[in-house]
Amino acid sequence: MQVEVINTGTELLLGSVLNTHLRFLAQELFPLGLRVTRQVTVPDGPDIRNALLESFARAGVVIVTGGLGPTTDDITREVTAELLGLELVHDEAIMAAITARFVRRGLTSGPRVGRQAERPREAVVLPNENGTAPGLYFAPRPRVGEDPGALTPHIFLLPGPPRELHPMFRASVLPILKSVAPASDFGIRTWRIAGLGESHVEEKVGERLLALGVELGYCARPGEVDLRVIGSPEALQAAESIVVGALEPNIVSPEARSLESVVVELLAGAGATVATAESCTGGFLAHRITNVPGASAVFLAGFVTYANEAKERDLAVDGQLIADNGAVSAQVAAAMAEGARTRASATYGVATTGIAGPGGGSAGKPVGTVYIALAKAGAVPRVEHRCFPTERETFKDLATQTALDLIRRELRGLP
Amino acid sequence: MQVEVINTGTELLLGSVLNTHLRFLAQELFPLGLRVTRQVTVPDGPDIRNALLESFARAGVVIVTGGLGPTTDDITREVTAELLGLELVHDEAIMAAITARFVRRGLTSGPRVGRQAERPREAVVLPNENGTAPGLYFAPRPRVGEDPGALTPHIFLLPGPPRELHPMFRASVLPILKSVAPASDFGIRTWRIAGLGESHVEEKVGERLLALGVELGYCARPGEVDLRVIGSPEALQAAESIVVGALEPNIVSPEARSLESVVVELLAGAGATVATAESCTGGFLAHRITNVPGASAVFLAGFVTYANEAKERDLAVDGQLIADNGAVSAQVAAAMAEGARTRASATYGVATTGIAGPGGGSAGKPVGTVYIALAKAGAVPRVEHRCFPTERETFKDLATQTALDLIRRELRGLP
Repeated sequence: MQVEVINTGTELLLGSVLNTHLRFLAQELFPLGLRVTRQVTVPDGPDIRNALLESFARAGVVIVTGGLGPTTDDITREVTAELLGLELVHDEAIMAAITARFVRRGLTSGPRVGRQAERPREAVVLPNENGTAPGLYFAPRPRVGEDPGALTPHIFLLPGPPRELHPMFRASVLPILKSVAPASDFGIRTWRIAGLGESHVEEKVGERLLALGVELGYCARPGEVDLRVIGSPEALQAAESIVVGALEPNIVSPEARSLESVVVELLAGAGATVATAESCTGGFLAHRITNVPGASAVFLAGFVTYANEAKERDLAVDGQLIADNGAVSAQVAAAMAEGARTRASATYGVATTGIAGPGGGSAGKPVGTVYIALAKAGAVPRVEHRCFPTERETFKDLATQTALDLIRRELRGLP
Repeated sequence: MQVEVINTGTELLLGSVLNTHLRFLAQELFPLGLRVTRQVTVPDGPDIRNALLESFARAGVVIVTGGLGPTTDDITREVTAELLGLELVHDEAIMAAITARFVRRGLTSGPRVGRQAERPREAVVLPNENGTAPGLYFAPRPRVGEDPGALTPHIFLLPGPPRELHPMFRASVLPILKSVAPASDFGIRTWRIAGLGESHVEEKVGERLLALGVELGYCARPGEVDLRVIGSPEALQAAESIVVGALEPNIVSPEARSLESVVVELLAGAGATVATAESCTGGFLAHRITNVPGASAVFLAGFVTYANEAKERDLAVDGQLIADNGAVSAQVAAAMAEGARTRASATYGVATTGIAGPGGGSAGKPVGTVYIALAKAGAVPRVEHRCFPTERETFKDLATQTALDLIRRELRGLP
């Protein structure tokens, strides 16, 4: 069953608002065995008409967001009624709900809110707990001007604001879709893999997985690849053996969780804490760790020591060590990690020092060079040397990815 | 000129990855006076063919993302070549660039990377500085099987990963679009404005600007708004007087430059330096400043003092001050800023302390509360109090935006 999503909203096409509808709807539909087969964004106004007609010809379910508000460019309701050959009727129950909402909030309703109580005849009203415009559902019906057997899809008109859309979808749309979705026992698994490129992952497991009759997908980001497998429960179990057998040390998470959230969880599980010392990554490593809710339980302190004086003053790095080896060196990385760990009384200290560019490179240490160190009590620090000759922000992505994976490997007991 | 965006990627339709392409492309096109008129997401595989054909019939520019990788579901290149009636040729220059990239990174290339060196004849290669697959550009040409006068749009095939797409778009796609965007003696000005919402900007200048006969656009992001004016040279000059007169203290840049790059430039121009002390923003403030090439000349050190002990130890904040006022308070923010400034011997110290959530809020200090302080020698620190009740990453965006704007105002002598 094809499911198509039509997002209306000029603000989406101007880039003022990030469109998060597709991600939300796709994740909600997946457990029903439904997947979105196409998504389109059109401006407020008449383009919604063509988008609907195109979807009518292909889809079993059409979900439209936006254009249900009170202003003149909100015409989703009217256009849908016209295409379905349904007249609009004033719905007293909707009007009463809207009025009650305004009263409850101590507001007076504007002159145009009455438009939102216009309901195409035969539309089912989906209550809106968090806004004025209700959603509308249209069961399949003969298509105007087409062969007698041609039916329209199941059509849902839903509000654009996520705080209205999300609860309405869960409360009113999912139950209808459950009753119409074809039964399927297919499942999905996604593994997040660090330290291997997309083509290497495919080389290691691609052919064997495809031989199981599953559907495969790859999604690459800096320093990581998501491997997605869709298939029957038996095929997924066989796929797991293959993936784990071939890729285990590189598997960050069997659920596509972020590397930083895995690291925070591993630290918390071990009762361990961490402090960071960053030169070239400039605070981004601390930022990624502190993006994880609950990070304050494991993250004690971070030092962004750009200047050599800061490395000496805040991390007790020996000035002679810097003079002998250069600030970008394995020796200084190790001393920074040890300094952060000791100063913050943390279980682990993690440090980065390198040349993000565009300036600062040399023949022996080109732009992109980075040393990453992890220190713990009673052991020689682990130091990794990499070269990421790319622009500044991707350099930071890759260097912090390597640092986080070093913590993960340490906590997992991996080399 | 109609601009359509086609995003390919099963991971987008499964909801595994949030589609940020439309927002990026729309914001980049905005200064050229171009806007996206339609955006569609289709799965990897043959659906890309229909999406392209539909766009051919409507658009002057088609931008396709994704499907250029080495794996078997990456077929954008092949489908486009077929629709344009162009054969694929093996491009030795692309192959050499891919091989050089692998060598530079000390990696061996997988067996399938050669696919990425297949180039449809007549396609212009757009170099990829951050990945293996180059982008491709096709100038308009007669459409296969259509009237002789029917031309294809300008077609760009671009990589899906944002870190590859963004620099390629700026380096190679924008110059081509600039040369093909409808000629006119009309000019475009874009002002970046901080600290005022979109509707306040409209209220202050909207009517007077429209009276000049110009076209107006607003593009809002967390903590800033871009105001775009399109019109004749005379109208733009009049617009500048109005905008500067009404909004001067809030104008970050008359060219839509980032706030952090403006701050680094102002600091360098004043011969001043800065140190940061971050609690709730967790390193993101240091990260934003150090994203600016040349930041090392003005950024001395950053402290991510999550734990109270770190605030006392690294920033010399009085433990009694924390006990009396709470770590999230104007007093502690001021002491953190002063501590960072003194410790790093910097001209300015900037500090953030607040409650990013989702946990940690109280009735008096709800989630979203943040204090931002700026300290300099011989003056009482400036402290701003804000509440941004939103999710964690947007909170960090808004709090660091406020902190950077505080530095900008100080350096510009603004209240």
